[in-house]
Amino acid sequence: MENFKKLEEKLLDFLDSYLKLTKNAGFSIGVSGGLDSAVVATLCSKVAKTYALIMPTNSSNKANLDDALALCDTLKVERTIINIQPILDEFLKATGDTTNLRRGNLSARIRMTLLYDHSAKLKTLVAGTSNKSERMLGYGTIYGDLACALNPIGEIYKSDLFEFAKYLGISQNIITKAPSADLYEGQSDELEIGFSYAQLDAVLKDIENQKTKQEIEAKFDEKLLQTIFTRIELNKFKLSMPPIANIN
Amino acid sequence: MENFKKLEEKLLDFLDSYLKLTKNAGFSIGVSGGLDSAVVATLCSKVAKTYALIMPTNSSNKANLDDALALCDTLKVERTIINIQPILDEFLKATGDTTNLRRGNLSARIRMTLLYDHSAKLKTLVAGTSNKSERMLGYGTIYGDLACALNPIGEIYKSDLFEFAKYLGISQNIITKAPSADLYEGQSDELEIGFSYAQLDAVLKDIENQKTKQEIEAKFDEKLLQTIFTRIELNKFKLSMPPIANIN
Repeated sequence: MENFKKLEEKLLDFLDSYLKLTKNAGFSIGVSGGLDSAVVATLCSKVAKTYALIMPTNSSNKANLDDALALCDTLKVERTIINIQPILDEFLKATGDTTNLRRGNLSARIRMTLLYDHSAKLKTLVAGTSNKSERMLGYGTIYGDLACALNPIGEIYKSDLFEFAKYLGISQNIITKAPSADLYEGQSDELEIGFSYAQLDAVLKDIENQKTKQEIEAKFDEKLLQTIFTRIELNKFKLSMPPIANIN
Repeated sequence: MENFKKLEEKLLDFLDSYLKLTKNAGFSIGVSGGLDSAVVATLCSKVAKTYALIMPTNSSNKANLDDALALCDTLKVERTIINIQPILDEFLKATGDTTNLRRGNLSARIRMTLLYDHSAKLKTLVAGTSNKSERMLGYGTIYGDLACALNPIGEIYKSDLFEFAKYLGISQNIITKAPSADLYEGQSDELEIGFSYAQLDAVLKDIENQKTKQEIEAKFDEKLLQTIFTRIELNKFKLSMPPIANIN
């Protein structure tokens, strides 16, 4: 992960190849003002015409909107702001009750729906913005922010994305803010999960590198491991196609 | 496909096993009044507590609503009607222009979103209703009606589902109506694709059975084959997880 120039080349090649293979005209991305979508938008804009959809609710952090707009200006990326609150309100009328988590999932799926409509209109690919830490932990909405046509950063851990973002010249504002899905006011990934991405990624990397359970248990805090193993087990369904009954 | 009793047992076992494995309380299904969701609702209701969401728009066929309600009554399945038109209208305000296809995809994704919210509320699994013909041809909305937690009929061809539905005792009303996604007024699967499911499935079965290209070309109409091969090629992305850039 030290050679960011090589990494960037690989990711640009991935985006370019798949765009040509599928004969699409460019990329559509949900830009939140956060780090992950900033990295993806930066990469995509180097490959082809890229469109940013900025889709806040009324409770979204205003600083994120400013950062999203500034990023699009810097990248010279065409952007559209859609306040999704009226759509969210209609969903909430239909569902009656809700919780923070359910409202967050509704918002994520509304954004996916708008991105796919946009991509159908302009013949673009929806570029995903879920990083490897989120994917392994299942920290994302299935058929929401996890849904995409392709994902250039899905194998990069969150803690490595901070450094890569610096290399790409992404603004300090975006790099230094606390990671948050911003699905409700004051949400923080690390507070919600209970550990920092540095802590989480250290374990996730050992799991990826197939360290034995004993080695891993000897190195890390029990509560940290329990959090991670429980999340992986409960959320692994988000990483594969749904099971279909075999009839033979 | 002759032994429907054995087939039914297999599908019930599939549903039961996965429900127990994932420790969920039952199933949530979008019931349209069509054949596929009627078969799935019938199967699910034999296994565990099953909830039907009936989600018409203002342009949905009223006969479908009646058939959906009658089915739920027969199965003694708890059902909720949600007219999704107000949600669809908010989406259309946000997107500005649209087409029949895009409006249909919006509706399919609104229904998925409501089903997943329902499943989060009641700790159920969203049961998918896409049959094998639709899946192979990519005749469905990715992250819309193709999205589910599990699918009991995804390996059954549409032309076989008619017979299976008879075996299951599903009403003649539902079995004899022309297959339609009912995404816009007067839509018919077979008119839209240009061939009947009997014609399509004959080819799809040969493809599944790995008949050679020459054998297949000798047996079937050129236009039919072109329709099928083009659809398979253009839509195969709907059947697998999105590509993620390899960074090693």
